Amino acid sequence: MKRTLNETNTLIDCGLGKIPCDYVLKNLKLVNVCSREIYEAKIFVKGKRIVSIDPDASLTAEREIDCDGMYALPGFIDSHMHLSSSMINPEAMAQAIVPKGTTTLCADFMEIANVTGAPVVDVMLENADKLPYRIAIEVPTRVPTAPGLETTGNIISVEEARKILSMDATVSLGEIAPAKILHRTDDNIQKICDSLNCGKIVNGHAVGCSYQELSAYASAGITDDHEQVEWEEALDRLRLGMHVFIREGSAERNLPMFVENALKLGYSFENTCFCTDDKHVHDIEAEGHINHNVNQAIKLGVDPITAISIATINAAKHFRVDQDYGSLTPGRYADIILCRSIEDIQPEQVWFEGRKVFEEGKVAVEKIERTYPEWIRDTVHFKRPITPELFRLPAPAGKSSVTVTIPELIKDQIVNKKFTATLPVKDGLVMRDPAQDIMKFAIVERYGKNGNVGVYFVKGFTLERGAVAYSMSHNHQNICVLGANDEDMSAAVNEIGRMKGGLVTVIDGKVIAKMPLTIGGLISEEVEAKNIVKQILAMNESAKVTGCTLPAPFMTLSFIGHPAVPQLAPTDMGLVDVATQQFISMIHEE
Amino acid sequence: MKRTLNETNTLIDCGLGKIPCDYVLKNLKLVNVCSREIYEAKIFVKGKRIVSIDPDASLTAEREIDCDGMYALPGFIDSHMHLSSSMINPEAMAQAIVPKGTTTLCADFMEIANVTGAPVVDVMLENADKLPYRIAIEVPTRVPTAPGLETTGNIISVEEARKILSMDATVSLGEIAPAKILHRTDDNIQKICDSLNCGKIVNGHAVGCSYQELSAYASAGITDDHEQVEWEEALDRLRLGMHVFIREGSAERNLPMFVENALKLGYSFENTCFCTDDKHVHDIEAEGHINHNVNQAIKLGVDPITAISIATINAAKHFRVDQDYGSLTPGRYADIILCRSIEDIQPEQVWFEGRKVFEEGKVAVEKIERTYPEWIRDTVHFKRPITPELFRLPAPAGKSSVTVTIPELIKDQIVNKKFTATLPVKDGLVMRDPAQDIMKFAIVERYGKNGNVGVYFVKGFTLERGAVAYSMSHNHQNICVLGANDEDMSAAVNEIGRMKGGLVTVIDGKVIAKMPLTIGGLISEEVEAKNIVKQILAMNESAKVTGCTLPAPFMTLSFIGHPAVPQLAPTDMGLVDVATQQFISMIHEE
Repeated sequence: MKRTLNETNTLIDCGLGKIPCDYVLKNLKLVNVCSREIYEAKIFVKGKRIVSIDPDASLTAEREIDCDGMYALPGFIDSHMHLSSSMINPEAMAQAIVPKGTTTLCADFMEIANVTGAPVVDVMLENADKLPYRIAIEVPTRVPTAPGLETTGNIISVEEARKILSMDATVSLGEIAPAKILHRTDDNIQKICDSLNCGKIVNGHAVGCSYQELSAYASAGITDDHEQVEWEEALDRLRLGMHVFIREGSAERNLPMFVENALKLGYSFENTCFCTDDKHVHDIEAEGHINHNVNQAIKLGVDPITAISIATINAAKHFRVDQDYGSLTPGRYADIILCRSIEDIQPEQVWFEGRKVFEEGKVAVEKIERTYPEWIRDTVHFKRPITPELFRLPAPAGKSSVTVTIPELIKDQIVNKKFTATLPVKDGLVMRDPAQDIMKFAIVERYGKNGNVGVYFVKGFTLERGAVAYSMSHNHQNICVLGANDEDMSAAVNEIGRMKGGLVTVIDGKVIAKMPLTIGGLISEEVEAKNIVKQILAMNESAKVTGCTLPAPFMTLSFIGHPAVPQLAPTDMGLVDVATQQFISMIHEE
Repeated sequence: MKRTLNETNTLIDCGLGKIPCDYVLKNLKLVNVCSREIYEAKIFVKGKRIVSIDPDASLTAEREIDCDGMYALPGFIDSHMHLSSSMINPEAMAQAIVPKGTTTLCADFMEIANVTGAPVVDVMLENADKLPYRIAIEVPTRVPTAPGLETTGNIISVEEARKILSMDATVSLGEIAPAKILHRTDDNIQKICDSLNCGKIVNGHAVGCSYQELSAYASAGITDDHEQVEWEEALDRLRLGMHVFIREGSAERNLPMFVENALKLGYSFENTCFCTDDKHVHDIEAEGHINHNVNQAIKLGVDPITAISIATINAAKHFRVDQDYGSLTPGRYADIILCRSIEDIQPEQVWFEGRKVFEEGKVAVEKIERTYPEWIRDTVHFKRPITPELFRLPAPAGKSSVTVTIPELIKDQIVNKKFTATLPVKDGLVMRDPAQDIMKFAIVERYGKNGNVGVYFVKGFTLERGAVAYSMSHNHQNICVLGANDEDMSAAVNEIGRMKGGLVTVIDGKVIAKMPLTIGGLISEEVEAKNIVKQILAMNESAKVTGCTLPAPFMTLSFIGHPAVPQLAPTDMGLVDVATQQFISMIHEE
């Protein structure tokens, strides 16, 4: 992204007609998000950048490309997405988002950074100059999410964050948890200062704050948020000088709330951007990516130029990159969507940094075959052998039953609630109770650091036999496993160890389905996005054989041990009461 | 401007009510330029920054200040002003602009930088922590304006520019001349790359460009301009992704043009800021500074919140400092205007970085007495003694008259036009011709470098006797002198030498008025702005004694030798044809 002398000189020479442009796109209607107009224009391109949009320019071009009267709009920007929680590698992600017109993905690699630490950023950016879209880095701050309450593979130190902040590809310090601000953790405040002092911004993540807390949070220099669910929360943020990222992901769908209220009450969209936060590839395929946000906003009554501006120039200005992208104007990268309608945007062509990257329903650049470095493919290690005995839970001496406080899952939610149950004791061990739908759940530390195995019970998973396991328990990314017997739990965890990460379903000691996620234990190496989708769906199907009726059992599994998701979070270190961020005892001692 | 850990922690603690704020402004109507609302609020302040604007916050404050129901709006930002062409030092400037509500002045020190080079920036910022307003640096690029066509005191190199760009106080690379872009001068293109690559912007100055040239100019990464005089020029800039600085200075008054057209044609003000460029202190006193732009826009039909936004948050966002100022929101500096009306903004109080700096018609902070460093007070040096003989102009041998091409001044304009005249020759010397209003004009090199004295004739100054001289001939800042006889010209220049810079009027060998400008030969050391105004007016009066009828004779004088102002520019090195940037001969050789 650095601007160079040679590139700039070449642009100027092209613009003055001294040397020819590479090509000109003609016969098109330009959506100018700077002047907020649509008019007939040409787009002259040299190398990666736009030379001119002047229909009457006396310029030469080596090729003329007729756009058949289509609209030309700037490539879309997703202002916040967790690329590394999608299981998709950056190369395969291209197949999902580029056909939808996304040319910039502002990515927070928080999940995998908890495994690998800072070096993951370089790995994810390795193909930055070959990918048909741009990854803009939001430096992960939740590494770890809950220090002292979980074992993680790595942390990102102040010095490491500073180094990533200094990279060209970096646009911000990523979503920072309120606890890290409101409890004034110096390392995190220092990271904020460093980001602001090098001219970059700080993204918010103000879940569960009171207005007064939100205000204190904003005062630290945090200038956006994507966590507003109610209109009042959104308005609070606007009033405090924070931009609202209007989120429309797979689960969290906040767009209608914001758009309908803003239109009804007469608020401007000037301080808004679009994001998805988390969106499954099959949802992107079915309904779209950021173009879905744009289309939905238009359907709700936002005028198309404004909706397109939210997805382009608004984000570019907010991230302070508008000299480089976000509009189709001279000097900016040629990130261009060509489409027939601006009421329902379905790209016919997508151009990225001057290259045609999507056409006729297909990504038009070669698939990138790559081998990830060995260290990132080898992140699952056990300090001690995993055996069924590790999953036994002794009862207090002399008890024939025990009372426990455990998480009860809530349908279609990632939050759980505290549930008090009485469980039987047999041979001195606390037992499952299928009659109450209470199964054993464990978090197995998988960085080879301490061999922790936290054994718990969970109500409501609906599993009846066998076991399911996954090497991504948010956000410490230890192995989470839930099973009807200790042998299958042990077998499932061992299979994950053999695969070096992934998803497993075991029944009667036999692996009936598995999906390897070898990049950090979280991400697939598969180059075809659609194959990854198929594998995920097959894993969900396999879980049905255990009796589980949840629609996305592995995703549910991955959130049970999340120390920032209420109310209870069993980690490898203990049972966390999320509200107090303290450990509590699962088994009541009388 | 660096954000520090301690300051941030203190803000958070205040915001959570753990420690008291310094004070709270209450009973006020907050103009929130982020949500575009006006509502009743409180402003809690700790140190330099705003803690909270929540009227219901459970916070404590050491003092409560009742604002009697006044409006509270963010301090105004002048997005571009030539502080060093005003003759006023930064300390005295406070008395002019702070009472009008300006708390940030984006200053291009191009004029004095041509004398002193880069070190002037530190001198101008020396009292930055004491001044009641903020100087934001736009790194001067026109140093020199016309290399090879003028002798200047200094240049700013690529390395020096890079150093200034890295300073906290710097917001941009300053207005860059089109010639430096369109002729691809590598040093200047490199400065642009450096500014963009460190996250700062580049200001435009696209005088006299065709649309195609403007487009090539914009493609270099220049994202604003203040030089649009016609609506079509403004619209061109908006379409090219440049922000329009709506200028309303002493001479250039472009605001009604822009505002009336934008309102009539339905264009947004989102990509606009306000500036004055050049505004005399007596004009600021009489009609206002940026508040005048705001008030005039409102009078023309812009709604007050929008007009105030242009003067505040729009500029802050454009310069990428909106996390620090431009709105009254938590974490931003407490730069606050309190006023009774938002239709005609006349501040009753002004607060800057938490300090009350204006109240009851008076600047409320102590005047800053300072001594400028000796090197900047000693910038007028002659390589050889100045004598009347230096102003003689020999005719070609054997001629009884000569034909000359000379500048003819145009009333109320800084541009001139080529005029061909026949002048008498006496004793082998070319003579003045009072009958044609043609007097002698000279540029005397004053850096002690080469002793150049360029001697010319100029038509239209209306001087009949004596001589006037000024040590600021734009932008090389050599001494310009115009007189009815060579003896008075010599005397005037020598007086400037004795004063080490300033303005002089001489009649019959006697100095009848003078005004010292000892800081770089351009700026007064006087601490009272109003005394500077008095002195300027007295100098203009003194020029009348010479018979001159021009309203601002010294300003006119200072633009005659400007190599970027059409059509002819006599410099110390020769007569510049501004269009071709080549020297031409004044005296025609047959």
